[in-house]
Amino acid sequence: MHIIIQITIILLASVLATLISKRIGIPAVVGQLLVGIIIGPAMLGLVHQNQVLHVLSEIGVILLMFLAGLEANFDLLKKYLKPSLLVAITGVIVPMALFYFLTRLFGFQINTAIFYGLVFAATSISITVEVLQEYNRVKTDTGAIILGAAVADDVLAVLLLSVFIATNGSSSNIGLQIIIQLLFFVFLFICMKYLVPALFKLIEKVHFFEKYTILAILICFSLSILADKVGMSSIIGSFFAGLAIGQTSFVDKVEHKISLLSYTFFIPIFFASIALPLKFDGMMSHLHTILIFTALAVLSKLIPGYFVGRGFNFSKLESLTIGGGMVSRGEMALIIVQVGLAAKIISSTTYSELVIVVILSTIIAPFILKYSFKD
Amino acid sequence: MHIIIQITIILLASVLATLISKRIGIPAVVGQLLVGIIIGPAMLGLVHQNQVLHVLSEIGVILLMFLAGLEANFDLLKKYLKPSLLVAITGVIVPMALFYFLTRLFGFQINTAIFYGLVFAATSISITVEVLQEYNRVKTDTGAIILGAAVADDVLAVLLLSVFIATNGSSSNIGLQIIIQLLFFVFLFICMKYLVPALFKLIEKVHFFEKYTILAILICFSLSILADKVGMSSIIGSFFAGLAIGQTSFVDKVEHKISLLSYTFFIPIFFASIALPLKFDGMMSHLHTILIFTALAVLSKLIPGYFVGRGFNFSKLESLTIGGGMVSRGEMALIIVQVGLAAKIISSTTYSELVIVVILSTIIAPFILKYSFKD
Repeated sequence: MHIIIQITIILLASVLATLISKRIGIPAVVGQLLVGIIIGPAMLGLVHQNQVLHVLSEIGVILLMFLAGLEANFDLLKKYLKPSLLVAITGVIVPMALFYFLTRLFGFQINTAIFYGLVFAATSISITVEVLQEYNRVKTDTGAIILGAAVADDVLAVLLLSVFIATNGSSSNIGLQIIIQLLFFVFLFICMKYLVPALFKLIEKVHFFEKYTILAILICFSLSILADKVGMSSIIGSFFAGLAIGQTSFVDKVEHKISLLSYTFFIPIFFASIALPLKFDGMMSHLHTILIFTALAVLSKLIPGYFVGRGFNFSKLESLTIGGGMVSRGEMALIIVQVGLAAKIISSTTYSELVIVVILSTIIAPFILKYSFKD
Repeated sequence: MHIIIQITIILLASVLATLISKRIGIPAVVGQLLVGIIIGPAMLGLVHQNQVLHVLSEIGVILLMFLAGLEANFDLLKKYLKPSLLVAITGVIVPMALFYFLTRLFGFQINTAIFYGLVFAATSISITVEVLQEYNRVKTDTGAIILGAAVADDVLAVLLLSVFIATNGSSSNIGLQIIIQLLFFVFLFICMKYLVPALFKLIEKVHFFEKYTILAILICFSLSILADKVGMSSIIGSFFAGLAIGQTSFVDKVEHKISLLSYTFFIPIFFASIALPLKFDGMMSHLHTILIFTALAVLSKLIPGYFVGRGFNFSKLESLTIGGGMVSRGEMALIIVQVGLAAKIISSTTYSELVIVVILSTIIAPFILKYSFKD
């Protein structure tokens, strides 16, 4: 019962945060992120990180990316493949280089410096997706570029992290892993083209309560698990699951129902969980580091995205949307930071510092996006 | 990710079990219960009990009872209050007396004998509710009697368990607790009459995705938590939450959505979890005890219910429905058995024995109900 109380508190606080956010005109997701800070250990201490919330928030981000896939426009994604890849690659190189040189300048070891770069190289698409959905921008040109770039970015970040971990101790075979990951994408293609449509056709004659929704969830979870098994982020799997189902005529039968399931339960828990690791103890003395890092974290994604957008003849505001869409770090960076803490690459003080920077960038991103939508 | 794999296995297995059950003509819930045995430690060992599954299945049973409340006919419940109470009281006295004398005859201590009686006194309404829903019988006369009786039964069982635990060591104040529980029912009445309708009216003008569904969930969880806090079963809280919302005009806006949320995720996990504790190791030598206990468990609920039904001029088949509706033990008995194991009132062998008997009675019950529906 104890954890059901925590879940109830999260859901209630999320509803209130969303209502207040709308009233004062800030993106709802910012309110929902702040919930984690307010009810978490940093302030009220009503809710603490635990395994159940962790699993529920994992399901939340999987479903969020699944919805992004369901709502994405596949033709636009293909059309904007080139700018997407360019946004992704520059959005990885610039922060990696910047944080590497900055931390080297501060006297950190090469290892740690690369790690800092990695933390800020990975975009977290989830918050951006939420903002795009809130303002109905998922199916636009800029939405397609951001989605494509964020997925490519996740793939890049995961590959870099794999290489980094492999060269830092654990001796897994990188070559083999990359081949397996390529095979995974071949399998995703087969899923999209043949398997998923075939499965939906197969159950058409079966009588079963909400059969299409359950099949959609099973496909989503299965591909997420598979993505995780080949060493990628699980949300890559769920995004492509959504994309595959989005291509079929069954998308109308499941989209609203998956939204219902996700937004009434799992996604609020995910958003609240992002800020749960936050503690402010003794962080005031690190304020200047935190502010510099946050500024760099924001700019190192915003500027490359903006210029790629301008290069492909998007308007200033549209380019700002593209750049702003890449700023948020969220769960991806938090996972990398946790890997670093576990591997003793960073201290627990640095950990708190980085978590605050990640969350600040995640809170700033929606404001940039909202500003860019003012056309 | 590990637990998401287990959840995916449960959901997939539940779908297959339901399809197979329908094909061979057995109640779907029996198939879903067998899932726990097949994929659990007793056979394939793919899924094991853990805290996450425990919380999800707890949410599952809360939502199941919430749905029962939503779909229940309040007027019928009031109309059949007398037969309901009589079914509940005889359905507690007969098994308690029977198991007490039987186990005393086998040479058990008074304490243990009372405990055996308690285990089989508590009806588990969840399985019955599921069967009633599957065959569209929730809103019938017999459905109302079963629902009323099962809720009264749960209240009785919880009170008896409280007394039993209090007189067996822990020195909580029984008198105070009963007063608090009575106050809880007063509060439930206020909720139904004023609070719940007022809350729904309050949010009518708010713009929020699926606001009615979220409010319904929050009310359901809050009353479940409160019921638990006053020492009752949480499902009492969710049942009355459902009943309260079922009285408002908003029931049509939430019922299907709560069903969707529940049946695509939480309820299958709950059903599969019931049989997860089962292990067959060395149970063959206890076969005769298990069979005798199972027969008694079934008959000691079936017969009182049947005769009360006949006494109130119900047909033979209808009376069989009423009796059969009380047979299933499920999670309530499992909780009591666990309390007994923790308090060292029973051994771990007896624990396994009782768990098997509880699950057998839970699997037999839907067959009796299905047979009684053949008119």
